Amino acid sequence: MNPPGVLPVRPRYSALGRRVHPPIIARLMNLALENPSLLSLAAGFTDSSTLPAGAVAEAVAGLAGSAGAPEFLQYGTNAGRPQLRRLLAARAAAQEPALAGGGEGRELFITNGSQQALYLAMQVLCEPGDIVLVDRPSYFVFLETLTGLGVSARSIPVDPAGAIDRAGLAATLRELRAGNGIERVKAVYFVSYFSNPSGRSLAADEKTAIAEVLAGEGVVVPVIEDAAYRDLYYQHPEAAPSVFGLAAWESFPRLYLSTLTKPFASGLKVGYGICSDEEWLAKMLYVKGHQDFGTANFSQAICERVLADGGFDAQLARIRPRYERKMQVLDGALRSEGLPQLGWSWQVPEGGLYLWLTAPETLETGMESLFCRTCIEGGVLYVPGELCFGDAAPSNQVRLSFGVLEEGDLREAARRFAAVARRFG
Amino acid sequence: MNPPGVLPVRPRYSALGRRVHPPIIARLMNLALENPSLLSLAAGFTDSSTLPAGAVAEAVAGLAGSAGAPEFLQYGTNAGRPQLRRLLAARAAAQEPALAGGGEGRELFITNGSQQALYLAMQVLCEPGDIVLVDRPSYFVFLETLTGLGVSARSIPVDPAGAIDRAGLAATLRELRAGNGIERVKAVYFVSYFSNPSGRSLAADEKTAIAEVLAGEGVVVPVIEDAAYRDLYYQHPEAAPSVFGLAAWESFPRLYLSTLTKPFASGLKVGYGICSDEEWLAKMLYVKGHQDFGTANFSQAICERVLADGGFDAQLARIRPRYERKMQVLDGALRSEGLPQLGWSWQVPEGGLYLWLTAPETLETGMESLFCRTCIEGGVLYVPGELCFGDAAPSNQVRLSFGVLEEGDLREAARRFAAVARRFG
Repeated sequence: MNPPGVLPVRPRYSALGRRVHPPIIARLMNLALENPSLLSLAAGFTDSSTLPAGAVAEAVAGLAGSAGAPEFLQYGTNAGRPQLRRLLAARAAAQEPALAGGGEGRELFITNGSQQALYLAMQVLCEPGDIVLVDRPSYFVFLETLTGLGVSARSIPVDPAGAIDRAGLAATLRELRAGNGIERVKAVYFVSYFSNPSGRSLAADEKTAIAEVLAGEGVVVPVIEDAAYRDLYYQHPEAAPSVFGLAAWESFPRLYLSTLTKPFASGLKVGYGICSDEEWLAKMLYVKGHQDFGTANFSQAICERVLADGGFDAQLARIRPRYERKMQVLDGALRSEGLPQLGWSWQVPEGGLYLWLTAPETLETGMESLFCRTCIEGGVLYVPGELCFGDAAPSNQVRLSFGVLEEGDLREAARRFAAVARRFG
Repeated sequence: MNPPGVLPVRPRYSALGRRVHPPIIARLMNLALENPSLLSLAAGFTDSSTLPAGAVAEAVAGLAGSAGAPEFLQYGTNAGRPQLRRLLAARAAAQEPALAGGGEGRELFITNGSQQALYLAMQVLCEPGDIVLVDRPSYFVFLETLTGLGVSARSIPVDPAGAIDRAGLAATLRELRAGNGIERVKAVYFVSYFSNPSGRSLAADEKTAIAEVLAGEGVVVPVIEDAAYRDLYYQHPEAAPSVFGLAAWESFPRLYLSTLTKPFASGLKVGYGICSDEEWLAKMLYVKGHQDFGTANFSQAICERVLADGGFDAQLARIRPRYERKMQVLDGALRSEGLPQLGWSWQVPEGGLYLWLTAPETLETGMESLFCRTCIEGGVLYVPGELCFGDAAPSNQVRLSFGVLEEGDLREAARRFAAVARRFG
């Protein structure tokens, strides 16, 4: 871009600019792009063939056919369309009355997917050097976001079955206090419904245990509950209330996040948060005002329409059995390929898009492992489990996503994966 | 939201969280919402009645009718849809060959309106306490963004006609050097085509002067050229090349920003940047990966289609004469109401959405001024010019936007504004 002889000067970067690095997952994604014959169980994409093109086209035709100026193509407001916020607030309240808040959807705000809400929350709460307590395993994009902001993640300990370890959390907090780290703990985060990556939901008493231990140790910090997969149950909604519905959390500032991106259409990129603390919410919105001063009004108008006309619920009814079926296909194929006999284990999830596999303890599945490279050579891609831990990452876990591949490809991917597992058996 | 007796604990905030404040303009917007009879010449909204609902509905119907899975409703990539990037790169190159870059649109990335690109650029370049050189007047949302990040703005001096003051800029830089501030200057920013707020374009020799003075003082810092209004000329494109087309800028890292939001449909919120520095671009994209990992794929797919099928150009052909006409209506009404005789002056712009008025020197037009309050009581809202300066803000300027109001309302708003001006005359 520069003519010969002109040497461009390089920018000097901020601490954040110096700190940020390519997302680890980008390497996997590039591998997938370079090898079109690879079957990817890595990307957390949603089911492509059932994406609601008809419902969206109908919503747009309806919007375009409405009388008056097409305000849906005009700028919207920073916090989101008032009617969409009311509809989502009513929906959340119907799902769980404690989420109703003060009414009128005032505590509910719209973001560019729930990811933006995570970023805003961290920006206004955390300095570089601060600590956020996270579930174990946790959402790896959130963990990378923390790293980018210079914030450390510290795991909430779990028992061998994956359940919250109350005594372990208390010990972690006391250890932080002893090391003068407790003042740096600024928030707690967990994916509580059909988690990415574990597929597990937190039971009510697990969530309560976290709050009680935190309160007992005097660590009453903001909690961020990521409920992105709550609507993606297969047969029954998860019964556990959110942190808004549990007495133990009442004195904590609470931010509950969800999205229409995962259950409806990821291409629309519309998420939302419900926040118990007016000031915290206001500060997040001030920063959003600087980042984009409002999520695309058009996407929001479409969401408003499909929420009101039943298109959203119809899509949920359509995809729940489809994801359950896909999960069963992948789960069944891995079992019939003999993975359990090789020492691999996993829980069958009741919702969400992921199987979370534990390999024999000595088998390394990390990004740089021979196993990972052999899988790629064998034509199958997964997310190394080590990416999903805030600290002390085990090296023998694997996240498999069944969201996007069709059933035949899921079977073939399982076959390829199991073939490699047998070689390492 | 808390039962009686439970006292919620407040979050502790980061420095950024403590620093951010409500946007000043929010107070004006709230006033407008509370007083529906107010005519707003404040909001920089686009013309509502010509928003391209038909073109968008057609694009969506076309997308929905395409064979195969509706990938436009799936997640996209962090940097934006490859085909959209190619189309925009080709368009930019057709407009100005120097914007062609290395080809294939690799230097071009998609953001949530050009605002997000501004935020990303500042995040990776600037620390709190740093300085950005800005045009005079400058885009007030950018100035607020800087304040939110703890960054100071320093004006590039201009002469009484508004043209870049070469000697003044050299003096500013020497003053910064003398005060040990020169190392804190991390970027230079200007809105160079039909500026928000001034309506003015920077001539080629003005842009060159900035580069030469900066280089002469050894301040070769990244330059951000905001070309959001470049497509919104009335009769002729502005002839001045961008910083990509001017030899004096060749050694500077350059970021050129534009958007489809302003000229096509603000509700889609699709902006783009072209960056000369691979590393700087990569770092901005890493941060974008944390903020949203990609702008709404659906909005991008629509843009791709209207760029390819001529819908975008048809919309431009439609709105250019409309904005010119609206400008003429507001300009004419203010003149026939006698504003020039009261000592007000302004230039007639050749593009964009704004008239930039200078009142008699003793007339204060600021947010808290009697003039501003009297205008609101009189039913008309404007943006106080004082918001549009990085430093040393004059208090007698006013930005009027004619983007959104219809002709009759523009005349009535001018009448109301002039009636107040006469009372203060």
